[in-house]
Amino acid sequence: MKKVYFDNAATTAMDDRVIDAMLPFMRSHYGNPSSVHSHGLEVRSAIEKSRKKVAELLNASPSEIFFTSGGTEADNTALVCGVESHGITHAITSPIEHHAVLHTLEVLAKKGTITLSLLNVNNQGEVDLDQLENLLKAHPKSLVSLMHANNEIGNLNDLDHIGSLSKEYGAFFHSDTVQTVGHFIHDLKNLPVDAIVAGGHKFHGPKGSGFLFVRKDKKIHPFIHGGAQERNMRGGTENVIGIIGIAKALELAYEDMSGHRSQIEKVKKHFIEKLTSEIPGVEFNGLSTDFERSLYTVLNVSLPPSDSNHGMLLFNLDLSGISASGGSACSSGATVGSHVLRALHHNSERDSVRFSFSRFNTLEEVDYTVDKLKELYSVEA
Amino acid sequence: MKKVYFDNAATTAMDDRVIDAMLPFMRSHYGNPSSVHSHGLEVRSAIEKSRKKVAELLNASPSEIFFTSGGTEADNTALVCGVESHGITHAITSPIEHHAVLHTLEVLAKKGTITLSLLNVNNQGEVDLDQLENLLKAHPKSLVSLMHANNEIGNLNDLDHIGSLSKEYGAFFHSDTVQTVGHFIHDLKNLPVDAIVAGGHKFHGPKGSGFLFVRKDKKIHPFIHGGAQERNMRGGTENVIGIIGIAKALELAYEDMSGHRSQIEKVKKHFIEKLTSEIPGVEFNGLSTDFERSLYTVLNVSLPPSDSNHGMLLFNLDLSGISASGGSACSSGATVGSHVLRALHHNSERDSVRFSFSRFNTLEEVDYTVDKLKELYSVEA
Repeated sequence: MKKVYFDNAATTAMDDRVIDAMLPFMRSHYGNPSSVHSHGLEVRSAIEKSRKKVAELLNASPSEIFFTSGGTEADNTALVCGVESHGITHAITSPIEHHAVLHTLEVLAKKGTITLSLLNVNNQGEVDLDQLENLLKAHPKSLVSLMHANNEIGNLNDLDHIGSLSKEYGAFFHSDTVQTVGHFIHDLKNLPVDAIVAGGHKFHGPKGSGFLFVRKDKKIHPFIHGGAQERNMRGGTENVIGIIGIAKALELAYEDMSGHRSQIEKVKKHFIEKLTSEIPGVEFNGLSTDFERSLYTVLNVSLPPSDSNHGMLLFNLDLSGISASGGSACSSGATVGSHVLRALHHNSERDSVRFSFSRFNTLEEVDYTVDKLKELYSVEA
Repeated sequence: MKKVYFDNAATTAMDDRVIDAMLPFMRSHYGNPSSVHSHGLEVRSAIEKSRKKVAELLNASPSEIFFTSGGTEADNTALVCGVESHGITHAITSPIEHHAVLHTLEVLAKKGTITLSLLNVNNQGEVDLDQLENLLKAHPKSLVSLMHANNEIGNLNDLDHIGSLSKEYGAFFHSDTVQTVGHFIHDLKNLPVDAIVAGGHKFHGPKGSGFLFVRKDKKIHPFIHGGAQERNMRGGTENVIGIIGIAKALELAYEDMSGHRSQIEKVKKHFIEKLTSEIPGVEFNGLSTDFERSLYTVLNVSLPPSDSNHGMLLFNLDLSGISASGGSACSSGATVGSHVLRALHHNSERDSVRFSFSRFNTLEEVDYTVDKLKELYSVEA
């Protein structure tokens, strides 16, 4: 059976060149980077080269980059330790953030460490930034956590605008950039953010790799205590192959980002056109058809009510070899539905599916998928 | 130049069979284990098989095993969340624990979450267990954290005895077992511990892999918040290759543990005999010459005062291609010396070196190393 992988916002296939970069650190260079002998130093040197590479690509300083086990640990670190280190008692976020942000802040609120304000979002998933400014006026020195791009509907937030507001009111601004690092340019010397995060597996690197950027003048204390690794910012022997892998993956992403982008945009454009012309009543969630204001890698499709597909759409697609998602992979195991679509008051009689793309996808895969959708919806067509 | 790797307590070389088990999950099976489609389910299934394997080997239930980014994160989780989840206000540990335990408890004490009692240790690194019982009498329902084996001097603690005491006084007993998992049998249905941890790279698995065991009736809440991974116990896309790798490494360790043990004991025995006969004034730290009460993988050697080697011994060994350690690798980057040897009131005029072994070491490597030590100490010999 044909296999089509349209779930790249959940995770991507590793690039062979990333694997090739990691292999020597599995087969030969096994020293502990904290050891002072030659076995250790060759590995230490490779880690620091990776850090330098990541910092260069993002226009940051190597001392602002901390490797983690992934985007979620990086988000937890920024939020929990950002709050503690800067004596923050109020945080502002939105109900459509990833659970790595939402649940972490909710736990802090439950403990009484902070009070938490949730911004309003409209039916297209746009966050109310006037409300943000009013809240910042009322609570200066808050923590603001708003994602760069929503992982389900693809909406992009204007980090420049949010960051400038945060700066004006002395807030600590963290952005979950897991969906955009490796797909968009981040110029961290000029972007007004205090902390961003990345997960390597979202751009053809390994799962279990990630990093946290924290701006020099907004230092935070460690989340995981132990040895002196990561300049005392994260205890624990480094995931060496993860670090080598995420740095290589980011390097490859930057090598031809605009080429990848235009290739993937063609896939997305073709998908929208084809769906619109062939599936009557199809709609798109969030801003995902707006190419300026959404991820080029994500298309969230709302299909017309259909008895035979209701609650079964993903399963039916899977039977045809098509992998897509109903929401975030991180919560798709649970059958609770998408907290993002719920916040957008999505019509629960319609089934939604997120198709998400990488440079490995083709127009033929789109045609195959739309043909299968036509079959599935033929009864009503 | 000959290369000798005697720093296996810091980290070990990966077994080729572990690499072979990981490779398919780098090259082909890239789905997100939380995704409900076929790409995801094949990976989910591999993770759960790994969990089952680990649980079987340790005689635990799969629901008691949580994969982490390593031993340090696992220690932090057990301690921080053990204290919070069970309303603990007093903890007992020793000054020769790994920093993953010591620093984590110190931070909790500094925050005022707990008060912290440190047990006395004698000059051989033996922990005062009478004092432990007195403290437990005075503070029932404490948290006790005592490592199975000390990573620097190799001393083994009697987990049965400590665990029984903890049970008697209703304490939560966590043991940092990073140096013993994969080298000793842990029968968790019968060993009276509430939480233990492992790091895959200590037994020929990958760096960045680890797990936490928490006994069913002592459940704790998550340390890293986010998605529903690890049955809601650890947010974040799983380090799939790390999980596959640590389970395979543990399987290989158990396949012939007694064979590995007798082979490594020969290396250690030969080392002790050779040093004793060839280096006048040599001594051994802790209990590391006691084969019943220390790690068979660790020998901590105290060399006679020597101007030409003082503070330079590890460097001089490294020049001869011999990788060994002055203390824990996790703090060896810092030049602060070993907190363990300090607690043992080790004579600071003598240089200490930890040689630590794996099944990849040979008697010839011991001979080579002792010959080099003889050269280095010839002036005084």
